[in-house]
Amino acid sequence: MEVKQVLHMNGGFGDTSYASNSLLQRKVISMTKPIIEEAITELYISMNAPNNLCMAELGCSSGPNTMVVATEIVKIVRKLCLEIGRQPPEFQIHLNDLTGNDFNSIFRDNLPMFQLELRDEKSRGQFSPCFVSAVPGSFYGRLFAANTVHFIHSSYSLQWISKIPKEVELLNKDNIYMSSASPTQVIDTYYNQFRIDFYTFLRCRSEEIVSGGRMVLTILGRRGHEDACREGCCYIWELLALVLKQMVAEGLIEKEKLRSFNIPNYTPSPREVKEEVEKEGSFGINHLETSEISLVDWSKGFRSADEPDWHNVSRGMRAVSEPLLSEHFGGFVMDQIFEKYSEILRECSNKGPETKFVNVTVSVTRNGK
Amino acid sequence: MEVKQVLHMNGGFGDTSYASNSLLQRKVISMTKPIIEEAITELYISMNAPNNLCMAELGCSSGPNTMVVATEIVKIVRKLCLEIGRQPPEFQIHLNDLTGNDFNSIFRDNLPMFQLELRDEKSRGQFSPCFVSAVPGSFYGRLFAANTVHFIHSSYSLQWISKIPKEVELLNKDNIYMSSASPTQVIDTYYNQFRIDFYTFLRCRSEEIVSGGRMVLTILGRRGHEDACREGCCYIWELLALVLKQMVAEGLIEKEKLRSFNIPNYTPSPREVKEEVEKEGSFGINHLETSEISLVDWSKGFRSADEPDWHNVSRGMRAVSEPLLSEHFGGFVMDQIFEKYSEILRECSNKGPETKFVNVTVSVTRNGK
Repeated sequence: MEVKQVLHMNGGFGDTSYASNSLLQRKVISMTKPIIEEAITELYISMNAPNNLCMAELGCSSGPNTMVVATEIVKIVRKLCLEIGRQPPEFQIHLNDLTGNDFNSIFRDNLPMFQLELRDEKSRGQFSPCFVSAVPGSFYGRLFAANTVHFIHSSYSLQWISKIPKEVELLNKDNIYMSSASPTQVIDTYYNQFRIDFYTFLRCRSEEIVSGGRMVLTILGRRGHEDACREGCCYIWELLALVLKQMVAEGLIEKEKLRSFNIPNYTPSPREVKEEVEKEGSFGINHLETSEISLVDWSKGFRSADEPDWHNVSRGMRAVSEPLLSEHFGGFVMDQIFEKYSEILRECSNKGPETKFVNVTVSVTRNGK
Repeated sequence: MEVKQVLHMNGGFGDTSYASNSLLQRKVISMTKPIIEEAITELYISMNAPNNLCMAELGCSSGPNTMVVATEIVKIVRKLCLEIGRQPPEFQIHLNDLTGNDFNSIFRDNLPMFQLELRDEKSRGQFSPCFVSAVPGSFYGRLFAANTVHFIHSSYSLQWISKIPKEVELLNKDNIYMSSASPTQVIDTYYNQFRIDFYTFLRCRSEEIVSGGRMVLTILGRRGHEDACREGCCYIWELLALVLKQMVAEGLIEKEKLRSFNIPNYTPSPREVKEEVEKEGSFGINHLETSEISLVDWSKGFRSADEPDWHNVSRGMRAVSEPLLSEHFGGFVMDQIFEKYSEILRECSNKGPETKFVNVTVSVTRNGK
């Protein structure tokens, strides 16, 4: 089974859905807002206030985060138009994710909220239509017609690589991701897959984005270049691997099943991101930044006064990984996996250094064609 | 509740789904294929073989019919390109329906089939990318950015009007549609709503379609101008009203519920279609035709040797009307309604004149802007 046929966030609005468990991803978007604001402002001005502005959210998922950036961008541009005395443009907003994504939920639940916010703006005499569409498919292939897109945003999506290379399956044994116990070759192979995928991503976007168009990409990554599995989210996948090993020991999961399971993620360093952008050559880098979110803050729901609640983290991890796990191990073990995972997170939270998620954000401009 | 919030075809792929019960609509599309072929060929030639061709299917629903016309158009244009020695264009294919439509099914089930057909074509050296997107919303409002669409197709969708006017609710009593027992005012009000809606539809499309762009619209209608409820599909709604009345008599449905239920349909004559196109003024008519499908043929699944099977018709009517009926009367009576409906169809099929569905097809070109 290919990653693109299985990977999606949990749909709907239930307890285990991505919509109900995506506070971390929302936090990341809000942290990168100034970079997005700068990019869209400079784009709009440099293009001399076009009548039509086409943007795309890649890896949009479903739930409250899906249209956050689109809403912000419409507001930023409309405010700008008021300031410079121009009629706001027509907006085209493409929402992209893999075909397993719950687009029905977006249309039934998120779109009406978005339109309601627009209507309020309309009453202030600032109306300009927004045409929303869903574009299903892998962003490691072409998604849009050539030279039609002005602005692309993607957050916490590009760490998902397109496939697990055969070498990883053969050599990574009981690990489910890059871990300190993984052979060097496994880590090199993961990195190589990221390079191929990210290069392909840039190549496809370079055809779709107009000259002078922009992208702001935030990738779950790491700070340092040297050790791909010392930082970032490797540790929380290691804890999930611990759960799975326990379940093998208890006879709840087959050993062979665990051996053949690996998470299709790679968390790049800023240097690795920069190298691919420069190698591909169609985009110039305006900003390349990192930011951090601590695992403990996530567990507290980003309310500093609260106590850590490891169920928050467990549910968040379930929302993003259940379709992959469920396809591989069967849906019937999911509740058990994530109950045990909460416990392990609680037990291990005080051991070792504080775990942090590192966000690598790059803001780029399409060179002249 | 507004029609646009309730109306959609039954989703998924089960026994009562539109996907499994849309043979009638498929038949209609195949009957109008020559008109579509002529329109797209003339469009492509008159625009001097553009590099990008943007088409939209309005009221696309989900299931095997959703991408039939898009597939045909891609094939027609590619064949044409071979003949005239041009590189085929990039295709943009917008699939539009109301927000309650099952877009997830399209992406998960119909899109892979479509892509498979494309891949076969690719192997013959005829590849040109097709970018598919879903555009949710009512076609009685703007859907696409100005001047971006070359070709629009819609079949068996424009008979759905945007709302049931208050007068119909007040005056139409136990009828659920225009019927011989309806007061004249009811029929006039239905017609008026169609005129408003169809005019609005044309106005919106006139902004979206490029100069020289085309539309082929097939509407469930009637032949003659005089009597709006003598022909067409009035009779099958009357039979459904009979079922509902029986159920009121049996205490299964409240009388008041029946009184406030009306089907948001109007089946126009060719003259009524022509009048609105001319009044709106942005489009010139190339063809205006009618065709017919007999109810008995539908019941036989269009296999002439077979015996009529009225379950086919009942299931087909259920697939298109269950969301409306279910919202109004409650989901628990649906099985009963459509079991009784099969029986009534069988009993009444030999009485009176043969019932036919009349298709009004209009092919138009956007005037110069």
